[in-house]
Amino acid sequence: MPQKHKVVIIGSGNWGSTVGKILAENTREHPDVFEQDVTMWVFEEDVDVPDHGTLRDQLGDKPVKITQAINTTHQNFKYLPGITLPDNLIANSDIQDTVRGASILVFNLPHQFISRILDQINGHHLPYARAISCIKGVDVSDGTVTLYSELIMEKLGIYCGSLSGANIASEVAAETLCETTVGYDGPPMDYKQSDGLSTDNLIKVDEQRQIKSKPSHIKLHPVPQSYSHVDSRLLNLLFGRPYLNVHVVRDVAGVALAGALKNIVALAVGFVAGKEWGENTKAAVMRIGILEMVKFGRLWFPQSVNERTFTEESAGVADLITSASAGRNSRSACHAVQKHLTVDEIERTELGGQKLQGTSTARAVCEFLGEQGKLEQFPLFVFVYSGCTLLVPMCDAH
Amino acid sequence: MPQKHKVVIIGSGNWGSTVGKILAENTREHPDVFEQDVTMWVFEEDVDVPDHGTLRDQLGDKPVKITQAINTTHQNFKYLPGITLPDNLIANSDIQDTVRGASILVFNLPHQFISRILDQINGHHLPYARAISCIKGVDVSDGTVTLYSELIMEKLGIYCGSLSGANIASEVAAETLCETTVGYDGPPMDYKQSDGLSTDNLIKVDEQRQIKSKPSHIKLHPVPQSYSHVDSRLLNLLFGRPYLNVHVVRDVAGVALAGALKNIVALAVGFVAGKEWGENTKAAVMRIGILEMVKFGRLWFPQSVNERTFTEESAGVADLITSASAGRNSRSACHAVQKHLTVDEIERTELGGQKLQGTSTARAVCEFLGEQGKLEQFPLFVFVYSGCTLLVPMCDAH
Repeated sequence: MPQKHKVVIIGSGNWGSTVGKILAENTREHPDVFEQDVTMWVFEEDVDVPDHGTLRDQLGDKPVKITQAINTTHQNFKYLPGITLPDNLIANSDIQDTVRGASILVFNLPHQFISRILDQINGHHLPYARAISCIKGVDVSDGTVTLYSELIMEKLGIYCGSLSGANIASEVAAETLCETTVGYDGPPMDYKQSDGLSTDNLIKVDEQRQIKSKPSHIKLHPVPQSYSHVDSRLLNLLFGRPYLNVHVVRDVAGVALAGALKNIVALAVGFVAGKEWGENTKAAVMRIGILEMVKFGRLWFPQSVNERTFTEESAGVADLITSASAGRNSRSACHAVQKHLTVDEIERTELGGQKLQGTSTARAVCEFLGEQGKLEQFPLFVFVYSGCTLLVPMCDAH
Repeated sequence: MPQKHKVVIIGSGNWGSTVGKILAENTREHPDVFEQDVTMWVFEEDVDVPDHGTLRDQLGDKPVKITQAINTTHQNFKYLPGITLPDNLIANSDIQDTVRGASILVFNLPHQFISRILDQINGHHLPYARAISCIKGVDVSDGTVTLYSELIMEKLGIYCGSLSGANIASEVAAETLCETTVGYDGPPMDYKQSDGLSTDNLIKVDEQRQIKSKPSHIKLHPVPQSYSHVDSRLLNLLFGRPYLNVHVVRDVAGVALAGALKNIVALAVGFVAGKEWGENTKAAVMRIGILEMVKFGRLWFPQSVNERTFTEESAGVADLITSASAGRNSRSACHAVQKHLTVDEIERTELGGQKLQGTSTARAVCEFLGEQGKLEQFPLFVFVYSGCTLLVPMCDAH
């Protein structure tokens, strides 16, 4: 019997709790591969107990710690109301205690917290742990642009893949049929083992998709041979559910980048909706958006990005469709046009100052493109960036 | 000065009149290349004159011939109400008179009329004319499946390309920004001329896209050297407008096929909407649909179909998005699920027996796949076919 993987998840918001639910369902279903309990790191806070169901019978009517609420009621009623979590998903507010002994770390928390959390984790995790980042967006601190999977690799010295897809959290939590994409291209050392298996038959992807994304200068530790391989089969056991189809590809950068860039395109679709230009224009904007996403990926990660991640995977075209149809970026951009405001102004007036991921990504991307002298190759991205900060120019363009 | 191309359009419905408008706008704008007048073949009928604007001042209040109505008011108020047509778009109910002397024929009429019209045209057109088919769907007569561009080539012995895209006719007619795809891979003889230009620099498409679709056994006549080449530049002059961006590709079969197959996927999205499964599932169905479209294209036209037509062109992913969001196939499928009826029954009760393009295409495609023993490779297409004829199985599947 191989040693069992200990799986933890860092983050417990809407999407974090949903992924925590999936992980705990799967560790229970595959006790030969995983330890049953999944610890979920929760940012501790006091929460009011809603007056419905049996919640107050269990918790009383005074505010309680969110960890206590989750571990008693098996609901995260503040961030994922109405969903029952498996009782082997254990909330823990101590980050160092959470990651101790874990061989698989799943990151799923708001991007503004990631850097500080990584500092707290560093040195408390297994040196050979493997990670998956479900964090959307790109990091733009210090004037450079970094994927969160890269940041995790840099800060912890462990290999990190990425997960992204057409995954509105509440729908995944309600178990309607959907798909997601995991980008994972684990270090070759994980596969050079006594069983003689090579990388090629462990990560089963199309021949054409085999694009290496090397974890650059970071010295990685091999996973001990006593564990099951962290490969596409294991990632399917961990994230796949009867209602969630997982496709593992090697293009880690493409998966993460698509999840960030699609928000820019969603803003553009929102502008079109606000102008009431109709379905042809929306579809044209999405098509052009996909092609700019591909072009940008090639510019930024020339060796590792695969066009098909954008045009054929859930993390690409499908996520773009859901975000453009039902997402907050698109809705806010639509309001901006209707009210003759900039998106920045909508963020201030309607979102209480909270920034949309699309606006910060558009800014970061256009600053990067400006430095590269390539702005004119990305008319849609540039257009969205101007539309977010200036008075929406589309109002006068037609 | 080269000899001028005479352009005609066969068909005058909603989409036919819209394309006629575009053609006439462009022939007027490029008098060095085209004869100014564009003749539009119209199926003659009596139409009632609406009681608004100046229509009754011009036509009286009794029913008039539709050709007279169009040529007097420059509106096709029955099929494209509210749109002013250029006065150089001339309605003509005589099909043989329409095509006489035309060097470019654009076909844009309901598919059930095409075969009879081709019989009437045969022998009355220039032997070296070139054609573009804007007809959606595939022909399934005589147990075989044929593209309308192929049917036109077969019956008239002239080369025919195809046009398709995210083009809801009323929006194109209203001149909101949009895109379309023209598939054109004209015979090499058109390019072996005294100017020494080769095929490769006349049709400017990506190197990777240069996929030949030979017009098989048909003997084509060369276009006389006195005319401008019928190439991507000319097709852009003919179909491109400030509000309509045209992309010419060589994959004629892919362009036409995408316009047919997307209706199957739109039905599937309608089923999901009817079940209220949400945006993740819809996006997953669209993504899987695109991949089945690609796979089917490769099976049917292994030499000539290019995957990118489906994943990157307006005729592919963009048209699928508009059809799934706003099309009749999707809406009818949604009603079928909500009312616990089959789509066949919806066609009888809501559409007065008119058949949806998606249902006949699903039937033709699945019969073809059944004969090839490949049904199990196309679960989405098969699922839609069963959903159209049987009691919608999704009702019990979840």
